[in-house]
Amino acid sequence: MTAKRLDGKQIAAEMRLEIKTDVERLSAEGVRPGLGVLLVGDDPASRSYVTAKEKACAEAGILSREIKLPASATKAEILAEVRALNEAGDIHGILVQLPLPDSSIEEEVLNTILPEKDVDGFHPVNVGRMMLGLPAYLPCTPHGILHILKRSGCSVSGKHVVVVGRSNIVGRPMANLLSQKNDLGNATVTVCHTGTPDIGRFTRQADVVIAAAGRPKVITADMIKEGAVVVDVGVNREEDSSKASGFRLVGDCDYDAMLEKAGAITPVPGGVGPMTITMLLFNTVACARRLNNLPAS
Amino acid sequence: MTAKRLDGKQIAAEMRLEIKTDVERLSAEGVRPGLGVLLVGDDPASRSYVTAKEKACAEAGILSREIKLPASATKAEILAEVRALNEAGDIHGILVQLPLPDSSIEEEVLNTILPEKDVDGFHPVNVGRMMLGLPAYLPCTPHGILHILKRSGCSVSGKHVVVVGRSNIVGRPMANLLSQKNDLGNATVTVCHTGTPDIGRFTRQADVVIAAAGRPKVITADMIKEGAVVVDVGVNREEDSSKASGFRLVGDCDYDAMLEKAGAITPVPGGVGPMTITMLLFNTVACARRLNNLPAS
Repeated sequence: MTAKRLDGKQIAAEMRLEIKTDVERLSAEGVRPGLGVLLVGDDPASRSYVTAKEKACAEAGILSREIKLPASATKAEILAEVRALNEAGDIHGILVQLPLPDSSIEEEVLNTILPEKDVDGFHPVNVGRMMLGLPAYLPCTPHGILHILKRSGCSVSGKHVVVVGRSNIVGRPMANLLSQKNDLGNATVTVCHTGTPDIGRFTRQADVVIAAAGRPKVITADMIKEGAVVVDVGVNREEDSSKASGFRLVGDCDYDAMLEKAGAITPVPGGVGPMTITMLLFNTVACARRLNNLPAS
Repeated sequence: MTAKRLDGKQIAAEMRLEIKTDVERLSAEGVRPGLGVLLVGDDPASRSYVTAKEKACAEAGILSREIKLPASATKAEILAEVRALNEAGDIHGILVQLPLPDSSIEEEVLNTILPEKDVDGFHPVNVGRMMLGLPAYLPCTPHGILHILKRSGCSVSGKHVVVVGRSNIVGRPMANLLSQKNDLGNATVTVCHTGTPDIGRFTRQADVVIAAAGRPKVITADMIKEGAVVVDVGVNREEDSSKASGFRLVGDCDYDAMLEKAGAITPVPGGVGPMTITMLLFNTVACARRLNNLPAS
């Protein structure tokens, strides 16, 4: 069997078109969704993520406003900018690009974002509401995975899902969302992590494996069962002298080896990645609707 | 092998003594911890729970103040009482006894409690902080189970725990807490529920089973492996003509049949139950300390 390719890029393109249409409709009603992006310091990776997000906003017709602070900015200066974005009437979503140069202030900075403008879904109020099954702005990567599975016709209801990784932005919310009693969830979910002595023992039983370990190719073909659905969240660099950059991107899964064993699999790149920014756009529009007392699209 | 009895009643008694000592110390410093209890309506079960909580407060030296409203109380009246407790300087913890006669307002009522006085750990801010691994007031039942395991010397680190049940007050927070990377967690956790086709397939693999299904004796001896640790959260009534009341309390597990197979097991009653109220006292004291800028005990 050859695995079905779960084409995140294609699904993201479809969703972005839907979002663009919705933005046009909203803008015609006088509500153009706006995203405020706060970038502190000059980290090249952060710079490139912010650029990609702003480009995606522009393509969807969403206003984006970048606030740039030097790496030397004080906590007070950063919080003042967040508060100004909280107040700004034309900004509906706020994104603080992580990591901050001083990671010790990240919690306070994120908690200062109004939950109503928390497009990353990182504020404790949104995390708590998500866990309680209440309407909430969901973190973009797990939210994107739910949509990949849904639009690929992969229902997880009644299935066994093994999530590898317990981070606050992927593994933990993913596990919670997949076990919720609703039409995107209802799976039996196991969370494995660095404290699991034998991860393969669990992944081999799984109908669906969500790999969010953050280590290249740690999930090998012998660790999945025949026909399993594999979602690869990893984005790791592997040396590749044939590339001008000297590296290529690989996931947490051994994609090539799994192709003949898995039932379906997301590639890296072109799988989960494009969905993450898409859900950021989705949340920005949802925030704009909610802040203007308009019904969800 | 005969299972070790995990004596929640005994552990609760030890912890309540520690809490009482702490309350004496705090009271001597002029900070007597106080719990506000809001009871709406005349449900006999709710009445008896409230009485038990107030009795436990009195024994620990904690002030308890009961606010009683008739079943006909409006939402505005209920919220006004919650706000008054939020403002009350001698009240550090607030408990709204659930269910409310009108369950549709429960979310709003619970969200009105100051997170700093949320001794039940039900407010989205506390739920979110718990999930993010930040300091938070933890929901009493899963928090109590962590202490039963700890004080019984049952470390779950590196073990496979299967939680049966996905409720917001037990199963979901329990799973999250047990998978956290800290000395009470670090387990590989599977959550089973009504959407799991074959729960026994999972529980039979578990080193630790947490049964929070809310159905009498649904976890049978053939569903656990030899030597497993079993924590039974269930409190169900079973007809028993030999009792004056006509019933006896049974858990979600078939206790008698498991005694020769499990490595350790909590009885019902006398297991998890006594710990739940204990953690309410614990949280009330923790709130009193925090609201008065005193270090945690």
